[in-house]
Amino acid sequence: MSLSSFSVLETEIFRYIDAHQSDFIENLKEWVAVESDSVQPELRKEVIRMMSLAAARLAALGATVNSVSLGSQQLLNGQHLPLPPVVLGELGKDPQNLTICFYGHVDVQPAKKEDGWKTDPYTLTEINGNLYGRGATDNKGPVLAWINAVETFRAFKIAMPVNFKFVIEGMEEAGSLGLEKLLEEEKQGFLSDVDYIVISDNLWLSKKKPALIYGTRGNACFSVEVEGGDKDLHSGTFGGIIHEPLTDLIALLDSLVDPTGHIQIPGIYDAVAALTDEDKKLYESIEYDIEEHKNNSGVKKLLFSTKEEILLHLWHYPSLSIHGIEGAFHEPGIKTVIPAKVIGKFSIRQVPNMDLSDVKQQVVDHLENVFAKRNSPNKLKVSMPLGAKPWVADVNDPLYKAAKRAIRTVFGEDPDFIRDGSTIPIARIFQTITQKRVIMFPIGAADDGEHSQNEKISRHNYIEGTKVFAAFFLEISKLRGQLHETSNPRTNN
Amino acid sequence: MSLSSFSVLETEIFRYIDAHQSDFIENLKEWVAVESDSVQPELRKEVIRMMSLAAARLAALGATVNSVSLGSQQLLNGQHLPLPPVVLGELGKDPQNLTICFYGHVDVQPAKKEDGWKTDPYTLTEINGNLYGRGATDNKGPVLAWINAVETFRAFKIAMPVNFKFVIEGMEEAGSLGLEKLLEEEKQGFLSDVDYIVISDNLWLSKKKPALIYGTRGNACFSVEVEGGDKDLHSGTFGGIIHEPLTDLIALLDSLVDPTGHIQIPGIYDAVAALTDEDKKLYESIEYDIEEHKNNSGVKKLLFSTKEEILLHLWHYPSLSIHGIEGAFHEPGIKTVIPAKVIGKFSIRQVPNMDLSDVKQQVVDHLENVFAKRNSPNKLKVSMPLGAKPWVADVNDPLYKAAKRAIRTVFGEDPDFIRDGSTIPIARIFQTITQKRVIMFPIGAADDGEHSQNEKISRHNYIEGTKVFAAFFLEISKLRGQLHETSNPRTNN
Repeated sequence: MSLSSFSVLETEIFRYIDAHQSDFIENLKEWVAVESDSVQPELRKEVIRMMSLAAARLAALGATVNSVSLGSQQLLNGQHLPLPPVVLGELGKDPQNLTICFYGHVDVQPAKKEDGWKTDPYTLTEINGNLYGRGATDNKGPVLAWINAVETFRAFKIAMPVNFKFVIEGMEEAGSLGLEKLLEEEKQGFLSDVDYIVISDNLWLSKKKPALIYGTRGNACFSVEVEGGDKDLHSGTFGGIIHEPLTDLIALLDSLVDPTGHIQIPGIYDAVAALTDEDKKLYESIEYDIEEHKNNSGVKKLLFSTKEEILLHLWHYPSLSIHGIEGAFHEPGIKTVIPAKVIGKFSIRQVPNMDLSDVKQQVVDHLENVFAKRNSPNKLKVSMPLGAKPWVADVNDPLYKAAKRAIRTVFGEDPDFIRDGSTIPIARIFQTITQKRVIMFPIGAADDGEHSQNEKISRHNYIEGTKVFAAFFLEISKLRGQLHETSNPRTNN
Repeated sequence: MSLSSFSVLETEIFRYIDAHQSDFIENLKEWVAVESDSVQPELRKEVIRMMSLAAARLAALGATVNSVSLGSQQLLNGQHLPLPPVVLGELGKDPQNLTICFYGHVDVQPAKKEDGWKTDPYTLTEINGNLYGRGATDNKGPVLAWINAVETFRAFKIAMPVNFKFVIEGMEEAGSLGLEKLLEEEKQGFLSDVDYIVISDNLWLSKKKPALIYGTRGNACFSVEVEGGDKDLHSGTFGGIIHEPLTDLIALLDSLVDPTGHIQIPGIYDAVAALTDEDKKLYESIEYDIEEHKNNSGVKKLLFSTKEEILLHLWHYPSLSIHGIEGAFHEPGIKTVIPAKVIGKFSIRQVPNMDLSDVKQQVVDHLENVFAKRNSPNKLKVSMPLGAKPWVADVNDPLYKAAKRAIRTVFGEDPDFIRDGSTIPIARIFQTITQKRVIMFPIGAADDGEHSQNEKISRHNYIEGTKVFAAFFLEISKLRGQLHETSNPRTNN
């Protein structure tokens, strides 16, 4: 294909995508309607139903589809819950083509109308050019944008520019249980002929300017259980004479982070990578509007006032957030009870080169130390139910350059090379297992509100995102022959 | 009636009560079956239904019954919720008789099977002589024991030894909203000819030994709201760069009480009454088994090791308990969100002579002071949605002596004169409004688990409690003429 015919094809493809917006939005509406919340056990059946829809959609593309069972998970209460299958899809086997493996997830975070949604979270609703619904941006919208792009090439009945593989899972919001093991098993099988891995499960740094992501923080989630007696007690009958478990827990949680966001756990910053000159240059060049990010957050004042400080604290340094307490009174109104057993939940977003098992040990040592000073007869139990490592990639890889060109074609400007403060463990997992290049290629905007109330993707981002993926396929097709000329990917495990 | 015929009647009455145990338990079963939880708004209709059952039961006794509407309450979210009516009942108007007004409540604390109940909380279930069910001891059982005792006298078709009045409410567990105003209005009406007020809404100090109660602690319930932005945020995307509201709240809650139970709010102990010699004597004489109380609590170690220290910290000193947090993640599992608005709940049990408005000011000043030091841009709002004053009575009053004799007759031993660490605001309210003697006359045992999982009253206590109330009516009838010889009741407002 000559450069001019390439360009003609691209134009035709973009026109087709524009003409089929309604169909693509209808597809997203159908997926958002499924409450595929992988966090709450009682909704697991909806996640499983969602996986069937995803498998059917890939099959409709002409892909060979295999829904691989992952068995079950055991909950803290001992109950066994079936894991949703992982959908593996394969479309095209041309040995002349490069093979891109797309990873996405179709499970979502919990959402209820009463959490503060303006629209029903499971009815995709367009308001002022935004498509509101749980999963619209995280991650159903981007998964469908990729599928829409593939579908568009099929509609033209031309040879595919690349071979496609798909890994679609339903447990991302609950720690991708079982997935790493499956990928490990498929290293010599399904994954053996993959050249590149593409993940589109993050957001741009801006509402308007596209970005490519080359690093993510890890996430170590902790449970701190303090148990007193065997039953809740009346605060009048026992208040003042017992060591209250919740008072202990509050003190433990209060020992974790100071008002400036600095983590108080001894040793926690020891392994944080030094800031290199190359890092600094990347940070300096990023177009980043602090006011915009602050407005997206909804808060009135951030902890830092310069671009570099903000980005360093999101990408380069760890952070600690307290999420809540299980077992205490949490409803509106008053209940004057001393709860018998309470479980604090917090998480640490770690960065290269923090080691998960070191972090766990530091947390346990610190909390046990604080607790010991209280002379409390209550029982303390610290656990790390979820631990995901950070990830970082090489921005000079041809894969990143191809994505950059596709973005320039569709959006008319170069992307920022950014990192993400949040955790997509799958990037590091794919890179470690396949030793192939991984790119994080977001199409959602900074104000999409993933995990939050009123999550959305804009119609613009969804449709232009479909185009940018299509353009990316063509750019990748131009990389044939260049594949083995580059250096090994950076790894940091 | 001569002393010997009095004794014969008593014996006959006790025999009747023993013979009708099954009927009395059936009555309790019917009442426990109603989920009359006054705390959770969606159950308000069940409380209202419960009030109808109580009114019908009094009418069946032959009482004149008046269900007085109290209008509605406004919730924090602005919603208006109807208040259950107060049932006023009147039985007997013999000018030769003294008039006892019995106060009780038929609403209950929240309870769900999954909180850790061994039986369904709304199906009264007898196991090893204990009757398990929400409200069994707090307060449906004691209310019915009193009604059973009146019913027994009616069954004998003899002249009643006293005139009865009943005040039955359905909002006790939610702060008795509207009741004080009603009682104030009825001061010259329904309450004008009352001689004594009896409340049976507490527990003995022991599992076996009866007690009479002459004081209760007050309860000041606080809400501490910390609000950041207008929506929950992803802890990866914003962790490390914002002042997290929950981190602020945890620090505020951690500033309230030290590991020994000592409240850290400046000035809070200033108004606590000095310990008198009479107080000390009462404390010393009490038969109190620390081990038993510790076992009832289910905890392994108490904050203090001597009887006097324990009782002083339950009755004579204030205590502070943290109850939980609204707005944060509280479910099992993991949700890595930074909540936008969180509300901490805690309460202070106050003692004579702490002043509610002083306590409120001290709490607000302290929290604002701690918060100011954090330099947080979040918004702090401290409120006291409920404030109930402490109460204390004169143990040398003939009313207390009559109750003591009834207890000796039925249980074969003298009661302990005790106070209660918990709050029954109604005692102080009745005393202040009517300027008549108030007695707290419990029939539940220390291990009844009011407000807790597996609340119960023993069959023994329920039936002997019915007898002791019947014997008390006869003792009161002997007080005719003595009424105006005693000193004024002690008040402390």
